[in-house]
Amino acid sequence: MHVGAVKTDRPLISLLAYDDDGIEEHRFESIAESREYLPQHKRLWLNVYGLQDAEILGEIGRRFRLHPLVLEDILNTHQRPKIEDYGTYLYCVARVFEYDGATRTLSSDQVSIVLGENFVLTFQERRSGTFEPIRERMRIPGAPFLQHGTDYLAYTLLDAIVDQYFVIVDRLGDTAEDLEDDALASPTPALLKTINLVKHDTHLLRRAIWPLREVLNGLIRGESRFFSADTRLYLRDIYDHLVHVVETLDAVRELLGDLMDIYLSSVSNRLNVEVRILTVLTTLFLPATLITGIFGMNFQVMPLLDEDWGFYVAMGMMGSVALGMAAIFWRRNWLRS
Amino acid sequence: MHVGAVKTDRPLISLLAYDDDGIEEHRFESIAESREYLPQHKRLWLNVYGLQDAEILGEIGRRFRLHPLVLEDILNTHQRPKIEDYGTYLYCVARVFEYDGATRTLSSDQVSIVLGENFVLTFQERRSGTFEPIRERMRIPGAPFLQHGTDYLAYTLLDAIVDQYFVIVDRLGDTAEDLEDDALASPTPALLKTINLVKHDTHLLRRAIWPLREVLNGLIRGESRFFSADTRLYLRDIYDHLVHVVETLDAVRELLGDLMDIYLSSVSNRLNVEVRILTVLTTLFLPATLITGIFGMNFQVMPLLDEDWGFYVAMGMMGSVALGMAAIFWRRNWLRS
Amino acid sequence: MHVGAVKTDRPLISLLAYDDDGIEEHRFESIAESREYLPQHKRLWLNVYGLQDAEILGEIGRRFRLHPLVLEDILNTHQRPKIEDYGTYLYCVARVFEYDGATRTLSSDQVSIVLGENFVLTFQERRSGTFEPIRERMRIPGAPFLQHGTDYLAYTLLDAIVDQYFVIVDRLGDTAEDLEDDALASPTPALLKTINLVKHDTHLLRRAIWPLREVLNGLIRGESRFFSADTRLYLRDIYDHLVHVVETLDAVRELLGDLMDIYLSSVSNRLNVEVRILTVLTTLFLPATLITGIFGMNFQVMPLLDEDWGFYVAMGMMGSVALGMAAIFWRRNWLRS
Amino acid sequence: MHVGAVKTDRPLISLLAYDDDGIEEHRFESIAESREYLPQHKRLWLNVYGLQDAEILGEIGRRFRLHPLVLEDILNTHQRPKIEDYGTYLYCVARVFEYDGATRTLSSDQVSIVLGENFVLTFQERRSGTFEPIRERMRIPGAPFLQHGTDYLAYTLLDAIVDQYFVIVDRLGDTAEDLEDDALASPTPALLKTINLVKHDTHLLRRAIWPLREVLNGLIRGESRFFSADTRLYLRDIYDHLVHVVETLDAVRELLGDLMDIYLSSVSNRLNVEVRILTVLTTLFLPATLITGIFGMNFQVMPLLDEDWGFYVAMGMMGSVALGMAAIFWRRNWLRS
Amino acid sequence: MHVGAVKTDRPLISLLAYDDDGIEEHRFESIAESREYLPQHKRLWLNVYGLQDAEILGEIGRRFRLHPLVLEDILNTHQRPKIEDYGTYLYCVARVFEYDGATRTLSSDQVSIVLGENFVLTFQERRSGTFEPIRERMRIPGAPFLQHGTDYLAYTLLDAIVDQYFVIVDRLGDTAEDLEDDALASPTPALLKTINLVKHDTHLLRRAIWPLREVLNGLIRGESRFFSADTRLYLRDIYDHLVHVVETLDAVRELLGDLMDIYLSSVSNRLNVEVRILTVLTTLFLPATLITGIFGMNFQVMPLLDEDWGFYVAMGMMGSVALGMAAIFWRRNWLRS
Repeated sequence: MHVGAVKTDRPLISLLAYDDDGIEEHRFESIAESREYLPQHKRLWLNVYGLQDAEILGEIGRRFRLHPLVLEDILNTHQRPKIEDYGTYLYCVARVFEYDGATRTLSSDQVSIVLGENFVLTFQERRSGTFEPIRERMRIPGAPFLQHGTDYLAYTLLDAIVDQYFVIVDRLGDTAEDLEDDALASPTPALLKTINLVKHDTHLLRRAIWPLREVLNGLIRGESRFFSADTRLYLRDIYDHLVHVVETLDAVRELLGDLMDIYLSSVSNRLNVEVRILTVLTTLFLPATLITGIFGMNFQVMPLLDEDWGFYVAMGMMGSVALGMAAIFWRRNWLRS
Repeated sequence: MHVGAVKTDRPLISLLAYDDDGIEEHRFESIAESREYLPQHKRLWLNVYGLQDAEILGEIGRRFRLHPLVLEDILNTHQRPKIEDYGTYLYCVARVFEYDGATRTLSSDQVSIVLGENFVLTFQERRSGTFEPIRERMRIPGAPFLQHGTDYLAYTLLDAIVDQYFVIVDRLGDTAEDLEDDALASPTPALLKTINLVKHDTHLLRRAIWPLREVLNGLIRGESRFFSADTRLYLRDIYDHLVHVVETLDAVRELLGDLMDIYLSSVSNRLNVEVRILTVLTTLFLPATLITGIFGMNFQVMPLLDEDWGFYVAMGMMGSVALGMAAIFWRRNWLRS
Repeated sequence: MHVGAVKTDRPLISLLAYDDDGIEEHRFESIAESREYLPQHKRLWLNVYGLQDAEILGEIGRRFRLHPLVLEDILNTHQRPKIEDYGTYLYCVARVFEYDGATRTLSSDQVSIVLGENFVLTFQERRSGTFEPIRERMRIPGAPFLQHGTDYLAYTLLDAIVDQYFVIVDRLGDTAEDLEDDALASPTPALLKTINLVKHDTHLLRRAIWPLREVLNGLIRGESRFFSADTRLYLRDIYDHLVHVVETLDAVRELLGDLMDIYLSSVSNRLNVEVRILTVLTTLFLPATLITGIFGMNFQVMPLLDEDWGFYVAMGMMGSVALGMAAIFWRRNWLRS
Repeated sequence: MHVGAVKTDRPLISLLAYDDDGIEEHRFESIAESREYLPQHKRLWLNVYGLQDAEILGEIGRRFRLHPLVLEDILNTHQRPKIEDYGTYLYCVARVFEYDGATRTLSSDQVSIVLGENFVLTFQERRSGTFEPIRERMRIPGAPFLQHGTDYLAYTLLDAIVDQYFVIVDRLGDTAEDLEDDALASPTPALLKTINLVKHDTHLLRRAIWPLREVLNGLIRGESRFFSADTRLYLRDIYDHLVHVVETLDAVRELLGDLMDIYLSSVSNRLNVEVRILTVLTTLFLPATLITGIFGMNFQVMPLLDEDWGFYVAMGMMGSVALGMAAIFWRRNWLRS
Repeated sequence: MHVGAVKTDRPLISLLAYDDDGIEEHRFESIAESREYLPQHKRLWLNVYGLQDAEILGEIGRRFRLHPLVLEDILNTHQRPKIEDYGTYLYCVARVFEYDGATRTLSSDQVSIVLGENFVLTFQERRSGTFEPIRERMRIPGAPFLQHGTDYLAYTLLDAIVDQYFVIVDRLGDTAEDLEDDALASPTPALLKTINLVKHDTHLLRRAIWPLREVLNGLIRGESRFFSADTRLYLRDIYDHLVHVVETLDAVRELLGDLMDIYLSSVSNRLNVEVRILTVLTTLFLPATLITGIFGMNFQVMPLLDEDWGFYVAMGMMGSVALGMAAIFWRRNWLRS
């Protein structure tokens, strides 16, 4: 049973057959249509977008003799990245991401890759452009690509997926730096929610990338006979990229961890600054109030009271003391928030 | 001696015998009753709810030749999850959980599974519905399930237990997010207690899940002859689920760790906001008080004092200054908590 | 030379000899006395309380051919738990604890266990009841215990020690929860000291327990020929208990780590609440003071001043405004600490 | 395709050929020029500054038979430090740093080293003085250096790179200590940015150094036949240096982690100190205001009011009380920020 | 070239030759002097204080055939502790510490130990008393020490170094506890510097001790033929001590980590307490000021104003209200800092 949430309108099956002699491409609207088609070249790449039609997957499973567990894992699109060896083929699960910078939301889709002797099967829930550049490279007449085996094709697929991670992680890094500026400038509870959201995204990303690393490490060490020694050299390259991505991601995560502290202290400081301003205002009124008190005393003999200009002198005293204090506080930056 | 706290009214023994030919089920009220029963099919699943009757366990132990340590571990229901190989059978301890979302309490029960050549014994303190769906699947006439050995039955039992973990962890995650909203909106000491309680629950859960992972890893690597190579493929699936659960749980734990900081700073900010409101109130009275002081001075010559409308002008000055300041503070959001 | 701090009045040597046929017990006041004694049963358990008499240890060392390093380690009672294989015997160091709940102090004593082919030697600085239940079990006529070798005796000794850890850790956990309540209710600097003290205790406990785990792991894996395969099954049980204790201890430690944060923020919040109360008091006086100012102004024409009841109206205004504000603050809980 | 950001005006190729008999040096302006040159000594060191000219790298790649992946890694200057064995040569990537103390910016460049049987190739994007001292040592007539193989040259190159790390880490440590003083004396948001910047730098440095450690460890353990047992002794030395650098870097990182806390609490304390000063000012005015109030009361019979010097006595009381309080506050350091 | 900072006035070379028959000691002022000396006993211990005279080290290096890297490491006194096997001898670097409790400064010196078949060489920059007790033990006529090989001597040297660590770590622990008291009683910025200094010291100590552990572990596992199986038993003892020291050090480090939090919150609380005192003072003046306001109102008809004793009643009201409030605040401990 299909577990993923997304249903595309109609599944799309595309076949790409190639060998040293050339390449042919074909798209099928239904699985029935594909039965009559006989490819001319010996290496096959069958790509399926949309998983809700159980019949398609069932028939592909029967034709390529896939284990029921593999079909189940393809349909249940919440798998952890992994590579499993089923004897006559290798089953690999990876995850592709899309990051929408505007809404700061990260969406992901599972990619299942089955690598057999002379075929590669790929399954995705949604149409995506991740593998399009690979098709472009294969269509070049006489491309050296076509002379490599299907293991090299599997390598380029993984490479395309990992290259995408770089873009995502860089965007998350930019977001984190934006959030840091926001946390200092205008710390709102909504920002706290956003920080936790981005944290959650880095978590998701890490969980998709980390196990891939382990898995590639195994392939490089030659645990699987599906990758030739030659292609393994290239896998080493993806591995380096993955480590790089993970390290960048960890730096982003550390920054996000600090962000919480910065946010919390920024909120607290804003409040304190506001209280300081209010206290400064209070202090400005005190001398004036004292002066009014002094001239409100009922002594028989007091200076200034009987002069015509006495009142204005008192008012002038009040004003000048308040202005003098305000100047001092202003110079100390105590009146600015 | 039985160590667990819960006593069911009456122990319940149910036997399920099956093989390729069919299935038979029987329930016994007492262990004596079971002595006369002779199952027709060769693979046995004996399930016992309620452990306080030492006689039942003793007799089962003698019939299936269980080691005294195994019987002791079944009765002492605070075991750490583990799998131990006793030569002629495998003894496995796991833990099932129930989470009551309303009272936010997590309760757990120990499940002991003994896997022998042609039998599986399961022991639980309380009746629970965890294994009911498995019985349903077995009752389907001609189910492929019946053709597998008892190792496959043991796999489905473990699978049912692990599937339950997903539900529990998701609920804990929801609780943690609710608590975060509460911490921002209304931070009370009771909330702090709840945070610590949920933290404690994740701790318990982790301790139940983590060792299971190790144990499964060992089984997958083929350390035990009780699981056929075929069933080991399925164990790999449970292992993936477990890793997934642990990762989700760790994300929940991280969120809970941040919660403490959010709570503490939220409490502190509320107080500061309240002090700010009070200080704003104080500031609003200052100019009015100064004006009363000014017109309370005893100068011979002062403006307004002799006019009939003087008093009302003074009152108007007080009111307008206070209203003006209040407007400014209001626009800066300093009067809202 | 003896390094430990505690001197018992007089060392106590007790011998327990047993085999399948029976058991005999004897206590010696001095080492000289023991020379003449010849046990009838082949398995010996020699227990010594009190280590300050170098002669006793010297003679035992010579008779059982112990290495000088072993004697040194028995006397220097600050050893780290360990098990060392000296070829003809196994030397094991563990630590027993006593926790005084009233004064919240943890005291400990070193237990040295020497396991040879047919003998077990145990050394402790102080008399303690840890091993008494084991003696009780051995004294039961025809106890199955007596049919096991000395390795089984060594196992029960270790088991008794580890069982004690459960009690201690539970008590520390209770103390930690009490401290949390105290931290929220009445945070005093004395409490901070207590938190650090309990932290220190968990540290000590962890250092005593953690290495034992490693050591047991080694024994279980069969690194030592002193434990039969049969007894090793039982050691696996102690190992599980130890892991359980360590996990509980770690939960206690995490709680203690949070306690510091709770304490610090609790102190800070109390102060803020007090400042809030004071600010509320200040605010209550402001309108009254303003009213006195208004009626203290020197305008010629002012309402109320010439009425007989004017003064009481003013006083009523003051009182009602203050009471109204107090009611608002009271409803907002701003007057309670 | 070249990925690095920096373009030097013109690439610089320098060749250094040496063996036991002597040494010769030559610089080429273009790759064409080098084709005609035939070195007299058998061991070659070819150094290239500037990578934007694809032709140069292509021709070198063809002549020394480098794998396309190696050429790609040389050009893509964001590689993680690593050593890869390509059978006939060893490809090593390291990173050199430059720290500008004034602007507190850390810039880095990738160094690629290819070690073959009788040649060493080095590639850098920018001209730097890192390797100049090595050339000096080689130019000394009859230097023992020349009798070693190219593996010894590779060792000295790595040694020169690691020695530079010491300088950089020490400078970062000095910067961190400066920042600590700044955080206590004048905590500004700009400082927070700087702290995060330096943190980021230590991150970068760690990522450049850490993998080198792993790599050297492998070489020392003799995984590669390109380093003789003799040179491996020297590699052990670099390894020790690297561990030393990493430990110092970790201490710097810990200091930086504390810095954030110090900064945040320093900001908060400054604000509190300012509020304290303001509150002290408020308190100083209170007794004077009370005294004016007392002598402003309208009792018929009051002391002092009718005396000529009454007013001055009142003023004196105000002044002396305020001065007395100021003295107390001054002695308690409450008037200093 | 010598890298260390300290120059002793004059290097001191002392030779101690011993075997089962006896012991002889000799001190040389210069290396020339030593050339003529021929020891009578076969096991040699050559100790050198002061490393600035390159000639001495050069000659010793030639006589005992030390590798240039060893000589370099002896002179460069910033080595990380390590043990390196050079085939015919073992080179060991350790670090001795001196802690000055008064100035709270930790100084250290590097000890190089070369252990060959029948000789031990030790090198230190400064004269220290670390090894004096060992010499004392060797001088005892017929000491069992002399019958052991040079590996036992090397063991006692390492033992003496590790024993010193206990003293240093205990002192750091005492310092940390003093600092905790200071942090609560009088938190000054100077204290923060001291906390960081002591933190730095524990860092240094840890870096000196940690690698030694690894190294000893290797020796115990029998990786080196320079230590006999017999002496390896003793090394196990040092290893235990080292682990003990590291654990104590880690407890000290954890305490220091908490110290920062305690300091920061202690500073913040002191400020808050001071602000509370000031706010209490403000509150005490409020009712008195209100009373003066009331009797300053200009109502025609007011009680008390026309009585002779009216003024004194008003003053009494002020005083009693202020005293009453002060009593309440005093009982709540709000007037004490």
